[in-house]
Amino acid sequence: MFEISPSAGYTQTLRCELRQEPGTLGRLTSAIGEAGGDLEALEIVGHRKGTVIRDISVMARDDDHARKIADAARAVDGVEVVGVTDRIFEQHLGGKLSVRSSIHVRTRNDLSMAYTPGVGRVSRAIADDVDQVWDFTMRANTVAVLTDGTAVLGLGDIGPEAALPVMEGKAVLFKEFADIDAFPVCVNVRSADELIAVGKAIAPTFGGINLEDISSPRCFEVENALKEALDIPVFHDDQHGTAVVVLAALTNAARCVGKSLDQLRIVMLGMGAAGVACVKLLNHANVDDIIGCDRGGIVHSGRDDLDDVKRSIAEQTNQDHRTGDAFDAFRDADVFIGLSGPNTVEPDWVATMADDAIVFALANPVPEIMPEQLPDNVGVIATGRSDYPNQINNVLVFPGIFRGLLDARATNVDLDTEQAAARALAEIVTDDELHAEYIIPSPFDERVVPAVAEAVRLQVEQAGTARADGTE
Amino acid sequence: MFEISPSAGYTQTLRCELRQEPGTLGRLTSAIGEAGGDLEALEIVGHRKGTVIRDISVMARDDDHARKIADAARAVDGVEVVGVTDRIFEQHLGGKLSVRSSIHVRTRNDLSMAYTPGVGRVSRAIADDVDQVWDFTMRANTVAVLTDGTAVLGLGDIGPEAALPVMEGKAVLFKEFADIDAFPVCVNVRSADELIAVGKAIAPTFGGINLEDISSPRCFEVENALKEALDIPVFHDDQHGTAVVVLAALTNAARCVGKSLDQLRIVMLGMGAAGVACVKLLNHANVDDIIGCDRGGIVHSGRDDLDDVKRSIAEQTNQDHRTGDAFDAFRDADVFIGLSGPNTVEPDWVATMADDAIVFALANPVPEIMPEQLPDNVGVIATGRSDYPNQINNVLVFPGIFRGLLDARATNVDLDTEQAAARALAEIVTDDELHAEYIIPSPFDERVVPAVAEAVRLQVEQAGTARADGTE
Repeated sequence: MFEISPSAGYTQTLRCELRQEPGTLGRLTSAIGEAGGDLEALEIVGHRKGTVIRDISVMARDDDHARKIADAARAVDGVEVVGVTDRIFEQHLGGKLSVRSSIHVRTRNDLSMAYTPGVGRVSRAIADDVDQVWDFTMRANTVAVLTDGTAVLGLGDIGPEAALPVMEGKAVLFKEFADIDAFPVCVNVRSADELIAVGKAIAPTFGGINLEDISSPRCFEVENALKEALDIPVFHDDQHGTAVVVLAALTNAARCVGKSLDQLRIVMLGMGAAGVACVKLLNHANVDDIIGCDRGGIVHSGRDDLDDVKRSIAEQTNQDHRTGDAFDAFRDADVFIGLSGPNTVEPDWVATMADDAIVFALANPVPEIMPEQLPDNVGVIATGRSDYPNQINNVLVFPGIFRGLLDARATNVDLDTEQAAARALAEIVTDDELHAEYIIPSPFDERVVPAVAEAVRLQVEQAGTARADGTE
Repeated sequence: MFEISPSAGYTQTLRCELRQEPGTLGRLTSAIGEAGGDLEALEIVGHRKGTVIRDISVMARDDDHARKIADAARAVDGVEVVGVTDRIFEQHLGGKLSVRSSIHVRTRNDLSMAYTPGVGRVSRAIADDVDQVWDFTMRANTVAVLTDGTAVLGLGDIGPEAALPVMEGKAVLFKEFADIDAFPVCVNVRSADELIAVGKAIAPTFGGINLEDISSPRCFEVENALKEALDIPVFHDDQHGTAVVVLAALTNAARCVGKSLDQLRIVMLGMGAAGVACVKLLNHANVDDIIGCDRGGIVHSGRDDLDDVKRSIAEQTNQDHRTGDAFDAFRDADVFIGLSGPNTVEPDWVATMADDAIVFALANPVPEIMPEQLPDNVGVIATGRSDYPNQINNVLVFPGIFRGLLDARATNVDLDTEQAAARALAEIVTDDELHAEYIIPSPFDERVVPAVAEAVRLQVEQAGTARADGTE
């Protein structure tokens, strides 16, 4: 097993009182370093007689590791740890979102304009012509982040309340990356039908719905029903966001190793929401030679343990009707795409792949196989982690896609839109920039959101699914 | 009929090119004044050879009046109207609300803290102890403004899209008056049951639900079901906000004319949502001598045209079992409370009331009877309008009530809470300040929200319906 590196997601601040004599601080930082902590900041916050007080921010690998680091600091001679605060919980105190009003109400006239009677005239105009809702309300820039809390991050079915910090975080990313006003709607329902009913009901406030962290297979049913019923885009990011980044990364990985995208032989592990969406989008992009695998091995139509979704995957993949374990599918494959769990792939398996193999080990936080374990026949590696090159991260995609959809006032989003987004994302990496360790740009590359948004907007307009007057 | 005065809710800006010679501007402003327009601003925005261009903002009474004012300006010699813009629609362009993120995401570390893996730790903490949602998410300061768009202002059943500007406006008021993050949830449902299902489902994101502009009698069913099902306060402002202001104003009107609140004989006209809530809250405050009237006359248990709600009103009111027209109820009454429609009360009726009669003519924008029409036996007059003294306006109440409920992390809101809010509001007007034309403070009086909020918080805490750790 390889140790993962400390993350800012586990940052604690140790308030330490240090005896004022040479060497104390050095002993403390050494102890933290030896415990594996990653020192982030060392701030002097006060003095007492003979001591100095410092706030020392340290990143850890996980909660347990954070406790060990604090213990290591406590054991240092001349140091007293007077307080430990968790930066993440501090930062989340009171939540991450608020509502801003664009109108200040300080006089009766302000009130008459923002509320009655002024607002009644705007309502009447929309009652007369419902399309005016796009001009005179928040709708055109507002997205619902809708979840039932059944598959939150890697935490599973933790319910709507516990899902709220994640949905707030998603809304933060919408705002920060694409200036979209996203709002969490964490709903307390037990069935797909109820979730569908809520999605249909709340639509009038929103220009689009981002489904998030809904368990499979109900996510497919919910998405299909809402897409069918509504005239705004409905996008399940766990599925389609992932599929778009994978297609973009695969396009560039193929460029990188000099293979043709549509001739790649692909083995995929993990047939959950993301895996299924990847198969569909890759097929749509004429990447047809895919073998899907799940815990039961290769997905083929002879298996009797498949649900409807996997049965359709069996029909869309595995042209040669192979059967067997996942291992059997690796031989001579050009590409491995993992959307499964930690440490599910052996180096031996990868060694049977073709030369210049492309490995996307996307399980998070621990990949299917760590980059250090990969044999020499691998040409390009991507993971979901930020501490290795080529991070496959949905934040590369969903802000730009929704920006484009909202700009076009799109009535839906489809595979063509996703393909256009993937192409735009791939093309950001120029021939000069392209490298086995740089097949995909950083989410902080300022070219990303505008390029994806523009491609999506144009595709929607060409397809005729933009609302009239959307971009005039 | 009396003419209502111009309102900022009907403000247009006329861009006029005026010949540069003495008298032109004077002729223009005279023409606007003669047309009944209320001049708000006269801004020079440019010059051409021999002319000056001005933006002239004018308030009108209504849309038709606004057009007449523009025509009057066009007819002035030496003036060319080169553009007319509607200030209200300009101000509403793009909506009135946006979402703000308290975290900026500029680096991978930011991402690790606002989103995965950091946020996962917060979610896990809430999954382990659901009460932590109040500390580490937006929930504790967030209110849903929930409507089905069936009774929007005076516009009726105009649907959820057309309701959105009003709900945004309500959220603006929540923010501006009480720093509450309110979010519009305009839902597309056809039945009370569906609306109840949505209200139950979305609750986990919110610290309270403000029901708004839902038609009667479904509003009673929806409110009762949600109050029963949820452990957050559910408050139908059209009912209870109105009732609280009415009780506060009535308390001070009684003080003003030297009558005892609980001995007042009251006639009420209008048994919709607000009327019913007023009866209930007045009864709760031991004001028992009430005769309710609707379009069918006095509400009494012998009528066979009453629904369940009105039947319960018949039981709670009309102790002497009177029958007859509304007119019959006025004789010797101390108080008239109108929550009905425009011009529904004749001066003759009021003349039969007791001396120092209290008249609350609250239909909006045109009252049941205009203040100018009232006979001499009237001691105190209040309306819903801002251009007369004693405006009964819900904005006096709902921001402070929700502020108090959220501060206490209240699990519900009841008649005791409402009564406490009314008392706090009434007590803001000191004996020195109290006057027939000043029974209720202005919504812009900075004492209002803190006083109401504090009274509500204390009442909730006393009643034991505050969530543990709510105010520590």
